[in-house]
Amino acid sequence: MSLSNHQFRLAARPVGLPKRSDWTYSEEPVRDLKPGEVLVKILYISLDPAMRGWMNEGRSYIAPVGIGDVMRAGAAGRVIASKNDRFAVGDAVTGALGVQEYAYSDGTGLIKVDTKVAPLPVFLGTLGMPGLTAYFGLFEVGQPKAGDTVVVSAAAGAVGAVVGQLAKIKGCRAVGIAGGAEKCRYVVDELGFDAAVDYKHEAVFESLKKHCPKGIDVYFDNVGGEILDACLALLARGAGIPVCGAISQYNSKAIEGPKNYLSLLINRARMQGFVVFDYADHYQEAAVQMAGWMMAGKLKTREDIVAGLETFPETLLKLFTGENNGKLVLKVADE
Amino acid sequence: MSLSNHQFRLAARPVGLPKRSDWTYSEEPVRDLKPGEVLVKILYISLDPAMRGWMNEGRSYIAPVGIGDVMRAGAAGRVIASKNDRFAVGDAVTGALGVQEYAYSDGTGLIKVDTKVAPLPVFLGTLGMPGLTAYFGLFEVGQPKAGDTVVVSAAAGAVGAVVGQLAKIKGCRAVGIAGGAEKCRYVVDELGFDAAVDYKHEAVFESLKKHCPKGIDVYFDNVGGEILDACLALLARGAGIPVCGAISQYNSKAIEGPKNYLSLLINRARMQGFVVFDYADHYQEAAVQMAGWMMAGKLKTREDIVAGLETFPETLLKLFTGENNGKLVLKVADE
Repeated sequence: MSLSNHQFRLAARPVGLPKRSDWTYSEEPVRDLKPGEVLVKILYISLDPAMRGWMNEGRSYIAPVGIGDVMRAGAAGRVIASKNDRFAVGDAVTGALGVQEYAYSDGTGLIKVDTKVAPLPVFLGTLGMPGLTAYFGLFEVGQPKAGDTVVVSAAAGAVGAVVGQLAKIKGCRAVGIAGGAEKCRYVVDELGFDAAVDYKHEAVFESLKKHCPKGIDVYFDNVGGEILDACLALLARGAGIPVCGAISQYNSKAIEGPKNYLSLLINRARMQGFVVFDYADHYQEAAVQMAGWMMAGKLKTREDIVAGLETFPETLLKLFTGENNGKLVLKVADE
Repeated sequence: MSLSNHQFRLAARPVGLPKRSDWTYSEEPVRDLKPGEVLVKILYISLDPAMRGWMNEGRSYIAPVGIGDVMRAGAAGRVIASKNDRFAVGDAVTGALGVQEYAYSDGTGLIKVDTKVAPLPVFLGTLGMPGLTAYFGLFEVGQPKAGDTVVVSAAAGAVGAVVGQLAKIKGCRAVGIAGGAEKCRYVVDELGFDAAVDYKHEAVFESLKKHCPKGIDVYFDNVGGEILDACLALLARGAGIPVCGAISQYNSKAIEGPKNYLSLLINRARMQGFVVFDYADHYQEAAVQMAGWMMAGKLKTREDIVAGLETFPETLLKLFTGENNGKLVLKVADE
């Protein structure tokens, strides 16, 4: 075969929001497979807030993407050639395949998925890393009990939408925080949250106080900043805050710390960071459970699919402006 | 009897450090006892950082002291009259008896102590609330394992000194942070900490990094502010931060949040507030265990005793300037 692979490589470490000039759009021929390898034709690329952190230098939970390297990203596609017994041509797979059209894999971290359960892009969202992040962050770190009030920020996003629905499945009151009336309508009317706060048009503290009359038992934090402070001020005794991310801070030079952190003391509460990778041994059972809830209609999903690999630099920014509606996915090729 | 009781009452809610004018020095005759009451002659009053918080209006883990009320404080003294079967004249007792010379009590929260185990002021420090705060905060919230590195701020203070010694008893590496060479010498040479960082004369982050080559497993936080941020930046995977207090922030109008809180995410770490009162059911067993360690020479104690009830407004400030050496106690009368 003589295929050509287009790729986005990191050209410079961004200051603030990533710009076009922080990327190189490169092209190289697809090489022959080595023994044990498979070639994946990428169909969908997952765009996630965490990608912003991977572009920065310095110690984190994962090594930064090197300058000149293909940008790291989760992706879904089809095996189109295989020298690996575990994968056959035609298999639908997901993995950390990068922002490109074709990827080689020795099978490590490559997961076969069943497109009879859900369309392929769903395996990058609710049945993929964002869904698993919601599952383990809520159940293992937040540990809500039935009847608890669970608040989640970025509630219409890929993680937040699942957090709220899982909270409802667990018998909790679910309150979402999202930007704009349409996202708030979506999480309440379509996803079944009990209430939503539009942080762009409402006073967050006052609205949350109204919707959480018994205080907040679990606040699943995706955003940091002022919303984290508002939630800290409303914690119930013994509350838990799974720290999943801080999208409001990712493009800042100086992180703003939570001024109300002493509410942890007053309320004997807990803020706890987690990284979904630590739960890899339990991905399978969680995914099976969530697929079951999805098929039972208890777990709904929405993808915001943008076509064209070449739009990657601009499409990624939709995450930080909040323009995406549901899980943001870049479509690279027709299935 | 015709005794006169001098008292310090809260006259105004302080802005910043409490001033003389925030207090009223009042005098009233000691009244006759009601059935069930005891009269305690106060000998020592405990001065603690937490008292600053009790002077503020607003929701906290305990109701604020009312304007005009006798200032709340732990104290130790002798029963000099009793209409309560549980207490006899001559009993040594501790309790929340207030900043005054005499206190009535119906026995609620009044604890008999044995001055053969330790001198009376020790029951306001290592064998009192500060010691219990260290015990439960370290063992129940921090949960260090043998071999872990435990860092504590305000290490020469009433709580910090006990935290480091308990960490050593548990088989941990203990690193203290304190202000000045003498306090650092004290915690290493006399209390047996492995190392100390003088935050007034050393770069805290760099010194801590040197003394904690494998990172910090438990940071027991008494101070907040820049020291909390330095510790966050040095957390080991799975670290715990018991949040005990934030003396650097108590007199500030605007609390400074920990800018490095996302280290919790990177390191799957936990910040958790606690209040010692929640462990009241286990005070007795902890105190017995600590008295045993004290008598075995494993738990040392130092009190900074200042004489004269009338010095209360100025003596209290020593806590915030860091002038005290060991547990700060106000001596009200001779034993």
